[in-house]
Amino acid sequence: MPTLPPAMPGMPLSEVDTPALLIDLDAFERNLKRMADAVSKAGVRLRPHAKTHKSPIIGQKQIAHGAVGLCCQKVSEAAVMVEGGVQDVLVSNEVIGARKLDRLAALSRQARVIGVVDNPFGVSEMAAAAARNGTRLDVLVEINVGASRCGVDPGGPAVELAQLIAREKHLRFAGLQAYQGRAQHFRTIEERRTAIDEAIARSKQTVQALKAAGLSCDIVGGAGTGTFELEAASGVYNELQAGSYIFMDADYARNKRADGGPYDTFEHALFVYATVMSMTQADRAVIDAGLKTFTFESGPPEPIGFAGAVYERPSDEHGNLNLAQSNVRPALGDKVRLIPGHCDPTVNLHDWYVGIRGMDGPAAVVESVWPVAARGAVF
Amino acid sequence: MPTLPPAMPGMPLSEVDTPALLIDLDAFERNLKRMADAVSKAGVRLRPHAKTHKSPIIGQKQIAHGAVGLCCQKVSEAAVMVEGGVQDVLVSNEVIGARKLDRLAALSRQARVIGVVDNPFGVSEMAAAAARNGTRLDVLVEINVGASRCGVDPGGPAVELAQLIAREKHLRFAGLQAYQGRAQHFRTIEERRTAIDEAIARSKQTVQALKAAGLSCDIVGGAGTGTFELEAASGVYNELQAGSYIFMDADYARNKRADGGPYDTFEHALFVYATVMSMTQADRAVIDAGLKTFTFESGPPEPIGFAGAVYERPSDEHGNLNLAQSNVRPALGDKVRLIPGHCDPTVNLHDWYVGIRGMDGPAAVVESVWPVAARGAVF
Repeated sequence: MPTLPPAMPGMPLSEVDTPALLIDLDAFERNLKRMADAVSKAGVRLRPHAKTHKSPIIGQKQIAHGAVGLCCQKVSEAAVMVEGGVQDVLVSNEVIGARKLDRLAALSRQARVIGVVDNPFGVSEMAAAAARNGTRLDVLVEINVGASRCGVDPGGPAVELAQLIAREKHLRFAGLQAYQGRAQHFRTIEERRTAIDEAIARSKQTVQALKAAGLSCDIVGGAGTGTFELEAASGVYNELQAGSYIFMDADYARNKRADGGPYDTFEHALFVYATVMSMTQADRAVIDAGLKTFTFESGPPEPIGFAGAVYERPSDEHGNLNLAQSNVRPALGDKVRLIPGHCDPTVNLHDWYVGIRGMDGPAAVVESVWPVAARGAVF
Repeated sequence: MPTLPPAMPGMPLSEVDTPALLIDLDAFERNLKRMADAVSKAGVRLRPHAKTHKSPIIGQKQIAHGAVGLCCQKVSEAAVMVEGGVQDVLVSNEVIGARKLDRLAALSRQARVIGVVDNPFGVSEMAAAAARNGTRLDVLVEINVGASRCGVDPGGPAVELAQLIAREKHLRFAGLQAYQGRAQHFRTIEERRTAIDEAIARSKQTVQALKAAGLSCDIVGGAGTGTFELEAASGVYNELQAGSYIFMDADYARNKRADGGPYDTFEHALFVYATVMSMTQADRAVIDAGLKTFTFESGPPEPIGFAGAVYERPSDEHGNLNLAQSNVRPALGDKVRLIPGHCDPTVNLHDWYVGIRGMDGPAAVVESVWPVAARGAVF
């Protein structure tokens, strides 16, 4: 059951209840435009990943900026996007199980739905579900481009799987899923380039082998916010799947540009707003945001305006700002804005986005309150 | 918006959609009874923490087993419990901000509601909210018993705060909040005993100083699943706040008993059910449960029935079972049960509990589907 929202449109920022997930709408809109410009200039398509935002409202804004559709990570996430009016959705990993496949096939009667397989069992199960539901599904073959998570080997094994798909009456072979997820957070441009050069080579080899077998790839999809410029310039990837660019988390900002500076093509646009709730020690402020407000696998959140302060020792609903190295001393009840370490799973903890206009100015105001509509859509 | 449930009552376990949060109802009921017996034998009260389960249905079962009420960690969590019929709720940490305090005070018109303070600002704000809402709130003083998170110093500073409360017409001093959270996961009994001896000494000293000032403590509350036997035998704590005992996570099982064996007073009763969705490498199975299904701050989940297998490299919706040290080789579509590393924040990711009867037998069946009603209640 969704919680009551922490704000209403028109409220000043300072009145937003905490902890709340804030979008800096100005920065968010600049991020949307920068990515739209980059893909347009590169002559490739954008199919941004909705697992970042889980919101058809945000997805529609991406489509209004030229995106051809969305990626989703689960069938239930795709269902929320289609129900929110999105007409073209790729579920970008393997779907196993008749209940999920039936839902996927049924969705394809309302929108273009693209599935992904990496084994013959997946092909026959997906074909059976499409047949049961009287529909035809577009299918990508996922290839292992170096991350060694999912995906068949490139070249021959991928061609064999594509041929299986092409023989199924209720499936249509639509191309390759070729995402190198691990490369996104490699810190130096050299590491990222090495990994993506390998991914490009594997994809190119597979596209050529498919062509030799008479199969063409409408989609060669992959790329994330950390590497998309490399895939965009590859000549083989034609659909980029970056998602985090709209929000930019603390971890992505630790990537380095070619000149060694911090990765700043996009701005931080997602924050958690928290309140100082206890201050019984001189060098520490306890805030009302812990393990149920952020996730920590990519490091702690970073407080804004507290130079030297470090967020540490999270418990369920508390976090400690260690102020030993900071000159800032907040008062009880003060509100603090923090940049999440990892946006996607942090968004998934919240029911509501609070959109703020003029975030850094004196008149910062709530402009929008949007549901995180696909929160919890893990099925 | 809650997701569709992953199961319906009557389904065999094997048909439950994944990833799903399973309760082994038999083990859960044994855990309920064991704790009820332990507190009854010790002659103390139980006020279990609802931050573990976030479900008034489960809270009511605890009350039916003798609990005097529940603890909650946030006002919005308390609201869900009161709306679910729970008549006595302690919000076991500081509540700062007029909006939250108004909600707390309004709740106290429907049920007994107890607040906690650790500073004079908190006292005056809580008194003002109670006055605005025409009610009177019971209030505990939180003392620092060694965890150094929230809480005033024991003795004199606690007495001063209690006297402030006693002078407020709309507040009533009700005792002490004295929780040693850090001690819960100390691995050896010696470490836990040292920490809780200190907490007992600080609490006792404060109770005596309050008595000398003419103030008595109806409630001296604290304790968690890792240490409750020590507080129960202390002669000063009279209300135990353990919560995790109903489910037992992988991390609590790493605590040692006095004889060095694993802590096994309670059984694992909470699991995540997942599906093998990709198997392209010989020594690895990819399952459909990652960072949006578990939290990882207390270590990875532990797969059952896969001796030697290790869950590693979680991404948003994937996890890898490394099978290099295991002889088990699952097939695509096989379902796997895992023990979460840390129950409370893992529960908070899910919309539904699927209650299973006869979990380990051939006729394991879905008996109940309960909402995680206060999921996301961070306000």
